[in-house]
Amino acid sequence: MNSPTAAMVVEASLLIRPLARRTPVMTSRSVNERSGKTVFFKCENLQRGGSFKVRGASNLILSLSPDQVARGVVAFSSGNHAQGVAIAAKHVGAQATIVMPEDAPRSKVEPTRALGARIVTYDRMREDREEIAARLLEGTGATLVPPYDHPMIIAGQGTAALELLEDAPHLDALVTCLGGGGLTSGCALIAKEMNPAIRIFGVEPELGNDYFLSRQAGKPIKIPPPTTIADGLRTMSPGKLTFPIVQELVESVLLVTDQELRETMRFLLMRMKILVEPSGAAAAAAVLFGKLPADIGTVGAIISGGNVDLEFQV
Amino acid sequence: MNSPTAAMVVEASLLIRPLARRTPVMTSRSVNERSGKTVFFKCENLQRGGSFKVRGASNLILSLSPDQVARGVVAFSSGNHAQGVAIAAKHVGAQATIVMPEDAPRSKVEPTRALGARIVTYDRMREDREEIAARLLEGTGATLVPPYDHPMIIAGQGTAALELLEDAPHLDALVTCLGGGGLTSGCALIAKEMNPAIRIFGVEPELGNDYFLSRQAGKPIKIPPPTTIADGLRTMSPGKLTFPIVQELVESVLLVTDQELRETMRFLLMRMKILVEPSGAAAAAAVLFGKLPADIGTVGAIISGGNVDLEFQV
Repeated sequence: MNSPTAAMVVEASLLIRPLARRTPVMTSRSVNERSGKTVFFKCENLQRGGSFKVRGASNLILSLSPDQVARGVVAFSSGNHAQGVAIAAKHVGAQATIVMPEDAPRSKVEPTRALGARIVTYDRMREDREEIAARLLEGTGATLVPPYDHPMIIAGQGTAALELLEDAPHLDALVTCLGGGGLTSGCALIAKEMNPAIRIFGVEPELGNDYFLSRQAGKPIKIPPPTTIADGLRTMSPGKLTFPIVQELVESVLLVTDQELRETMRFLLMRMKILVEPSGAAAAAAVLFGKLPADIGTVGAIISGGNVDLEFQV
Repeated sequence: MNSPTAAMVVEASLLIRPLARRTPVMTSRSVNERSGKTVFFKCENLQRGGSFKVRGASNLILSLSPDQVARGVVAFSSGNHAQGVAIAAKHVGAQATIVMPEDAPRSKVEPTRALGARIVTYDRMREDREEIAARLLEGTGATLVPPYDHPMIIAGQGTAALELLEDAPHLDALVTCLGGGGLTSGCALIAKEMNPAIRIFGVEPELGNDYFLSRQAGKPIKIPPPTTIADGLRTMSPGKLTFPIVQELVESVLLVTDQELRETMRFLLMRMKILVEPSGAAAAAAVLFGKLPADIGTVGAIISGGNVDLEFQV
């Protein structure tokens, strides 16, 4: 498959308008004081389906032919991509079948089912979701909507950075969470096009550091199934399309602990009044816990999602 | 004191710009489906200080003379007004002294103290906060910043509706929570000016129904200290300035139960990913629990605040 381009991100931004919300960019005095930087948060937790994933899924699914739509779509997903696919599939009238881990949060499974998707669960410690998806595709003619390693998916996710840089043009750096690399590579492509001097950082959980180790090795390596609380960042290896883009455009991969993710979620909820899931807090955690170089003054950070099972009492 | 006017709300909107954020207006498919209406939420929980209160406090405090600023300000508040006053006082360099109930949420007390305000606590079941404030004012020459019953406070709070109707002009109805009546009367004044056909509703907790009972009686009556979880709506009687405005412009006062407030908070947190305090959920609860007349299609609801002590685990 061809590598995606910045122009494809611009095209995606027009195509996905009926399905993806233009999310607000929020600022917080508390965050600026604590981090010593000026921080702009792109709030994809307020996106339709609760994460940025509807951007990429819509970009691919809105490009399908009527014939492809009639044969349906299949996706494998830790949860948020499932909702994105289900939203776009419902919009075009395609049957969606989604392969999800048994231990996915209820807040990701239930809305996906409510959107009319068929859900197939698997044991993520012992089964391979790509194999299950391949079996589901056999003989059906359905289209696979991969979670990150596809040019249309990458281009769609990049629209988050396109909007962020329209609203906050003078950023020294852009920080995104790094799972499969779809969000990071799409955002890096368009951000470097809009502002060649911008510095790009990806953030992984320490307990899910496949990109970090792959960069050290100079090639994609595979790690065992991660145990981090950041369920959206439990990928075991970088994508074939995303890894070279990350290698070229991302200055460094920063690591955050699960405890830093928890504290960041609490900070964003109590101070900024927004609910952010563990994966969604990764970029903010890197900012709040001082992982960025000191010479960076103005930062855009993508809050990637807000789907988390939270138990609380009032 | 003179009654406030719609023109004063417009003036306030210019004056308070350095201190009050223009908060986002959010929509939600889940809310529209469940309520059968098209709902626009004005998110004052995302306001500076976590509630709309900074609007009124800024409007009054930014109008003080240098001499008045030098003598400081005094306020009594269940919590959110305290933060609003502390923010505006810090901005102009005035010492703020705030009288707060002993059982105010930590999420309201601590940020107020952090802003440099002096806090005096009282027992809201046995002491009268207005008397304590009056004693603090004696001989100091400080200015009292009342929580609602002042034309500049009412005009400032009205700016929330001014912004909402700029962003969502074609509303059939506007719904606000109703405590002392500052927000409701300021919003009603400007909303009726911008759209004379708009229908205005105030929402009270069943366990804090001083306006509801006062309207039945045709005059302000006083209830015992309310026990509702909506700590921002525990006023015991309507204001002298606010009651006549509410009587004239508000179609009816709707009542919600504490359980409806809890369920609304959970819904707004899990589906819309925003943290809303019990008082802040009142207008949304009226919409979600079908308290509005059936012939209303398009509703603006003010989410008034987000300061709540929440215990949770991830």
